[in-house]
Amino acid sequence: MADRYQKLTSRPAGAFVARRLGLPRPAGLERYRPGQPVARGPVVLGGAAGGRMHKTLRELLESAGAEVLPAEAAAGAGPSVPAGSLVFDATGIDSSARLRALYDFLHPRIRALAPCGRVVVVGTPPEHAAGGPGEAAAQRALEGFVRSVGKELRDGSTAHLLLVAPGAEGGLESTLRFALSARSAYVSGQALRVTGTAPVPATADWERPLAGKTALVTGASRGIGAVVAGTLHRDGAHVVCLDVAAQAAGLRAVADRIGGGALELDITAADAGDRLAGYLDEHHGGVDVVVHNAGVTRDKTLGRMSADQWEAVIGVNLTAVETLTARLLDSGLLRGGGRVVCTSSISGIAGNVGQTNYAASKAGLIGYVQAAAPAAAARGVTVNAVAPGFVETRMTAAVPLVIREAGRRMNSLKQGGLPVDVAEAVAYFAAPGSGAVTGQVLRVCGQALLGA
Amino acid sequence: MADRYQKLTSRPAGAFVARRLGLPRPAGLERYRPGQPVARGPVVLGGAAGGRMHKTLRELLESAGAEVLPAEAAAGAGPSVPAGSLVFDATGIDSSARLRALYDFLHPRIRALAPCGRVVVVGTPPEHAAGGPGEAAAQRALEGFVRSVGKELRDGSTAHLLLVAPGAEGGLESTLRFALSARSAYVSGQALRVTGTAPVPATADWERPLAGKTALVTGASRGIGAVVAGTLHRDGAHVVCLDVAAQAAGLRAVADRIGGGALELDITAADAGDRLAGYLDEHHGGVDVVVHNAGVTRDKTLGRMSADQWEAVIGVNLTAVETLTARLLDSGLLRGGGRVVCTSSISGIAGNVGQTNYAASKAGLIGYVQAAAPAAAARGVTVNAVAPGFVETRMTAAVPLVIREAGRRMNSLKQGGLPVDVAEAVAYFAAPGSGAVTGQVLRVCGQALLGA
Repeated sequence: MADRYQKLTSRPAGAFVARRLGLPRPAGLERYRPGQPVARGPVVLGGAAGGRMHKTLRELLESAGAEVLPAEAAAGAGPSVPAGSLVFDATGIDSSARLRALYDFLHPRIRALAPCGRVVVVGTPPEHAAGGPGEAAAQRALEGFVRSVGKELRDGSTAHLLLVAPGAEGGLESTLRFALSARSAYVSGQALRVTGTAPVPATADWERPLAGKTALVTGASRGIGAVVAGTLHRDGAHVVCLDVAAQAAGLRAVADRIGGGALELDITAADAGDRLAGYLDEHHGGVDVVVHNAGVTRDKTLGRMSADQWEAVIGVNLTAVETLTARLLDSGLLRGGGRVVCTSSISGIAGNVGQTNYAASKAGLIGYVQAAAPAAAARGVTVNAVAPGFVETRMTAAVPLVIREAGRRMNSLKQGGLPVDVAEAVAYFAAPGSGAVTGQVLRVCGQALLGA
Repeated sequence: MADRYQKLTSRPAGAFVARRLGLPRPAGLERYRPGQPVARGPVVLGGAAGGRMHKTLRELLESAGAEVLPAEAAAGAGPSVPAGSLVFDATGIDSSARLRALYDFLHPRIRALAPCGRVVVVGTPPEHAAGGPGEAAAQRALEGFVRSVGKELRDGSTAHLLLVAPGAEGGLESTLRFALSARSAYVSGQALRVTGTAPVPATADWERPLAGKTALVTGASRGIGAVVAGTLHRDGAHVVCLDVAAQAAGLRAVADRIGGGALELDITAADAGDRLAGYLDEHHGGVDVVVHNAGVTRDKTLGRMSADQWEAVIGVNLTAVETLTARLLDSGLLRGGGRVVCTSSISGIAGNVGQTNYAASKAGLIGYVQAAAPAAAARGVTVNAVAPGFVETRMTAAVPLVIREAGRRMNSLKQGGLPVDVAEAVAYFAAPGSGAVTGQVLRVCGQALLGA
C-alpha cells in the first residue's frame, strides 16, 4: 500500500538518510479491518468543568469497548500513561481564558501518544454557542488549536474536532467511532459538525450498519468508485454499480465481485433520470444511499479552455448530480432516512491552476450539499460531501514525478491517501447512525496544506 | 520594496535563469498612491442575463472615473480589447448550466488583461440565494472558479469575488473600489460578503474617508501597526497610537510623525479597560475606529510549551481584544457607526506547527468577529478581521532563509506582502462607506496556498 519513497524511508538506511537530509518520513497508517476494536489502546478522557459531553463520551467509549482512563487518575506524579487516544470535552469552555484547560490536559500527554493515535476534541459549533461572543471565540479557537495539533502529530497520529450542537448529543456515536477508529486513517485536522436533533436510528451491528440497504454508486467501474462500492458492500449494503457503457467490462467485474447490480448509464443523458428511477423502482423499489462519485477533468487554463471542456466538467460533476438527486428526492425513490454523498475536492475548496471548470463544479457541490441539507432533513435524509486530497489512483500515478511527490508530501501525514480512505468516509456518511450529520464537507486529505 | 530574489529576477539575466529553471518570477505589484485613479485602464463590464447588479456596477464604475466598455462592444470580431479590469455580474446565474456565461465572458478576454489587472466577479452569497439548491450551488461554484482564476493570473493581476446580499446593493461601493484599486494589491482569490441592508453613509471624499474620525491602533510602535497608523492618518483620521511602555520611544516617534496621540498601556493589565476608556473619553469624547493590531508569538510544540507561553499568547491576542472591545462597546465610547478591526492570521485559519497557542488565539478572533458582528450592527458598528499571510517585517526577516523563501513564494503572487498591504485592508474596513461589511475575515496573503 505504501508508495516507493515511503517504502524506502521505512528501512533503516533510508530512514537514516531521510533524517539527515530533513526529508519527510511518512509513517505506515493503520487501516480498518473488520473485527478490529474501535479504539487502539486505552483512551484518556478529560474535560473542562461545566462541559455537557463528559458522561455521553464515557458511555460511548465504553459501549465501543474502549478502556477508559480518567484524566485525574492518569495525570498523577511521574510520567503520564501512554494512550492510544486522548479525548477532551471542551464544551464547558466559555471564555478564552478557560482554553487553558485544553492545554493542561494535552500538554503532559501528547508526547506519549501511541503511533496512529487520536486526539479528539469535542466542542460546540461556535454559531450555536449561547454564551455570546466570548464563548463563540473560545469554541472557534478550538479549530485553530486542533489544526495545529494535527500538523504537530507524528507516527500516523491524527487530530479531530467534533462540534456537537446542544440537543444533538444523542447523534454523536457514529462520528466518534469514525474519528477514533482506523477508518479515519487519512483524515486529520478537520472540524465535523453534529447538529441534527431528531433521534438517530439505533445501530444493531456496527460491523454491518448498511445491512438491508440498497446503495447506488456512480463511476463505480474503477478507481475510488470501485473501492466505495466494495466498502459499502462490506458494510452490508446491496450495491448498484453505475458507469458509462464504455466501462461496461470493468463495471460488470466490480458488480460481480460484490454480488451487486450493474447499470450502464450516461448520467448526463436527457433520459438519465427516467432510466435510473425506472431501474431502482423495478429492482429495489427505491434506494437508501446515493454516492455521486462519477467525475471528469478537462484541465486547461481558462484562456485556452474550450467551451466543450467547460461544459463536460460542469455537466458531469455538478449538473448531473443536482438533476439525479432532485429526481430521486422528488419521486420519493430515495427513501426516508436516505443518504446522499457527493464527491467534492480540495480543488473545489482552494481552486487550482488549469481547473477553473473542475474547481467550479466541486465548489458548486459544496454549495449544493449546504443548501439541500435543510430541505432533505424533514425526511431524515442527509446530504454530505467528501473532499479528497491526493489519492493514489491510476489517474494520479500518471502525474509527473515532481508534481506527484509535492502532492503526496504536502500534508501532515507526508503521503498520499488510498481509495479506501475516501470510501471509509463515504461509508461513515452513509451509515444510518450518521443521521445527525448533514450539510458537511469532509476533507480526506491527510490535512493537506492547500486550502482557502 | 522588492526582496532580493525579486530584484534579481526582474533583471534580464536573472529572468532568463529563473525561466530556464522554472523558478517563480514575481511581478512588481502596483501599490496605491493618493490621487491615483481607482481602476487602472478601461473596465470591461459584463453580466449574465437576469442579474440585479449590472446597473449598480455601471454607476459605481463611472462614479469612480473608470472608462467602462460594455461586453457586447468589446467581444466583437478580432482580438478582444485589452482591459485593466474585467467585471462580471454573476447574480443572474441561477443554475450550474448557466455558469457558462461566466466562461463566455472571461475566456476570450483574460489573456489580454493588463499587468496588475483585476478580475472581479459579483455574486450572491449562497446562503442568501432564494432559488433553492441549484442557485446556491451555482453561486458557490463562483468561489472555486475565482480561486482558480487567481492562481492562473500572472503579472501581478488578482481576482476577487464580491458576494452582495439582496438588499445590500447600496453598500457595495467601498468594496468595489477596494477590489479594483491598487489598495488590494496583495489580496487575491478571496470572497468578500456585503450583507448590510441599512443605508451606508455617503463618502464625501474618497481620498480622506476618515476625516474627522478618531482611530485607536494597538501595537502601533513598529511593524505593521506603525504602518496601519500612518495609513489611517493618510485617510484623514486622528490616530491614537498605543503600545507597552517598553516601546515608548518608537511609539512616540510614530505618533509625532502623524500628529497623533501616544498611549502607553499594557492591554492585558487589570486596569487596561479603565485607563483606555478614561483616555479616550478625556481627549476625544470617544473613538470611531479600533484596530486590534497588538499580538505576540511564543512558539513551541504543544508538548514543550510552558503554561506561561500558552497564557501570554491567549491573553494578548484574544482575551485583551475581547475585554477592551466589550468595554468600549458597552460604555458607548465606541460611537455609532464605529469600526472594530481585529488581526487574525493564516495560522488561525490553517493551524501551524509550534503555534497551538497562536493559532488558537487567531482562530478565536474569527469566532469573535462572527459572533460580535450581529449584536454590534444595531448601532451601525462593524466588526471584521484581516488575516495576514507572509508579510515582510523585521519579524519575518529573522526567519531562516529556506523557510522564509517558502513562505514568500508559496502564494499566487510569488512574493511576501508589505505592511502597507495589511494597512490598506484595515483602512478599507475602517472607512464609513464599508458599513455594509461586517463579520468578515479578509486574507491579505497573495492567495497563499495554505488553508483549511
